[in-house]
Amino acid sequence: MMAGKLYAIGVGPGASDLITVRGARVIADLDVLYAPAGKKGAQSLAHTIVEEYISPNTEIRTYHFLMQADLSDKEAVWDEVAEALKEEVAKGHKVGFITLGDSMLFSTWVSLLERIGRQPWLEIIPGVTSFSAIASRSVMPLAMETQTLAVVSCTAPEDELEQALRNHDCVVLMKVYGRIEQVRTLLQRLDLLDHSLLMADATLPSEQCWRHLDELRYEQKLPYFSTILMNKNWDTSR
Amino acid sequence: MMAGKLYAIGVGPGASDLITVRGARVIADLDVLYAPAGKKGAQSLAHTIVEEYISPNTEIRTYHFLMQADLSDKEAVWDEVAEALKEEVAKGHKVGFITLGDSMLFSTWVSLLERIGRQPWLEIIPGVTSFSAIASRSVMPLAMETQTLAVVSCTAPEDELEQALRNHDCVVLMKVYGRIEQVRTLLQRLDLLDHSLLMADATLPSEQCWRHLDELRYEQKLPYFSTILMNKNWDTSR
Repeated sequence: MMAGKLYAIGVGPGASDLITVRGARVIADLDVLYAPAGKKGAQSLAHTIVEEYISPNTEIRTYHFLMQADLSDKEAVWDEVAEALKEEVAKGHKVGFITLGDSMLFSTWVSLLERIGRQPWLEIIPGVTSFSAIASRSVMPLAMETQTLAVVSCTAPEDELEQALRNHDCVVLMKVYGRIEQVRTLLQRLDLLDHSLLMADATLPSEQCWRHLDELRYEQKLPYFSTILMNKNWDTSR
Repeated sequence: MMAGKLYAIGVGPGASDLITVRGARVIADLDVLYAPAGKKGAQSLAHTIVEEYISPNTEIRTYHFLMQADLSDKEAVWDEVAEALKEEVAKGHKVGFITLGDSMLFSTWVSLLERIGRQPWLEIIPGVTSFSAIASRSVMPLAMETQTLAVVSCTAPEDELEQALRNHDCVVLMKVYGRIEQVRTLLQRLDLLDHSLLMADATLPSEQCWRHLDELRYEQKLPYFSTILMNKNWDTSR
């Protein structure tokens, strides 16, 4: 019997051709592909990104990870999917699990990894992070030389955000959605607005970039994938 | 006349198939490829990574970026290469400039970008960072949920390193080479040794991983591309 294998694949920030060559090749050769979906019934963005690489012989299973649910409900889904992945490997199948961006950063995959552990039949394939894509698309660099970079989620307490913005040359503020007013006020207070831009849906056809955060109208509804990039050594108007 | 175009391409951490699909396709279609080399006469690692994608019709120019030189000597090289890239674009050529990892993070490309500026004929293609590759290969995750990630260079002052290690859940310590004793002592003092691993040459055939930093013998000569990954929520023995 063929030895089974599990691949956790970071599919990159959004454009289909920003997956790695290895990720695309592995996906084309899978028996089963697990795709996470944020909303019940909706196709996952990760699935859409890799669609062109999937073979007709690969079985797709879409799993609904409960983003807004209680921890115990989330844990039940993670337990179930981790168990299903292990069963597929035991059957000798080549199984893939795809996640947006990089597989090891702010990714549901890590909750499954906690249950699966380091295994000889597991290969994790890294991907391009959203903030690398944002830096490239907006032509605003991340840290260089002895500068430092921090990546924080705006769901963290405000004093942590402030500390990161004070201590680091370059800060990526993820999950801005629903918190733009509070974050903009903080950036203004720290005199960092000229060094901050906001990008939504980087590398997708719906990509948008605001180089002047005050131009972003208060009532404007931000897309879900909105991120602020701040670099003290670079002006956004540059 | 064809419109010229400049592509700055992050080629990923080391393995040839960890470049993006877009990066590989663009490289195959270049008129001229600029490859940086660390040492005079040595082929650049970035060049080796992309070799299999290069067309025989593409002209290769290897540039020696003076890593150890005075700033004024470095600036003279950056001026010269930036000028050469602009001239190639003006001739209507498709020109590529490759860098290890991601093009916008700790990359020589940014020194050229400072001279070239945001241009309609410039496309920057992001790449997989070394720390994403290290997390995948060592099966130790980066930040998740509301956790925060800092990426710092060990060339920064020690109090900055200590501050980053105290404030963040997950810290990537780049450029450990030549500073391992000092960094290990710091990690020990902060009681973080069980949460720290060191990886060298991730995804290359010469890859090495130390999960117990005390096993790394004092006199052992580390490879140049050595990085420590610390995650307070994960034990390296896991």
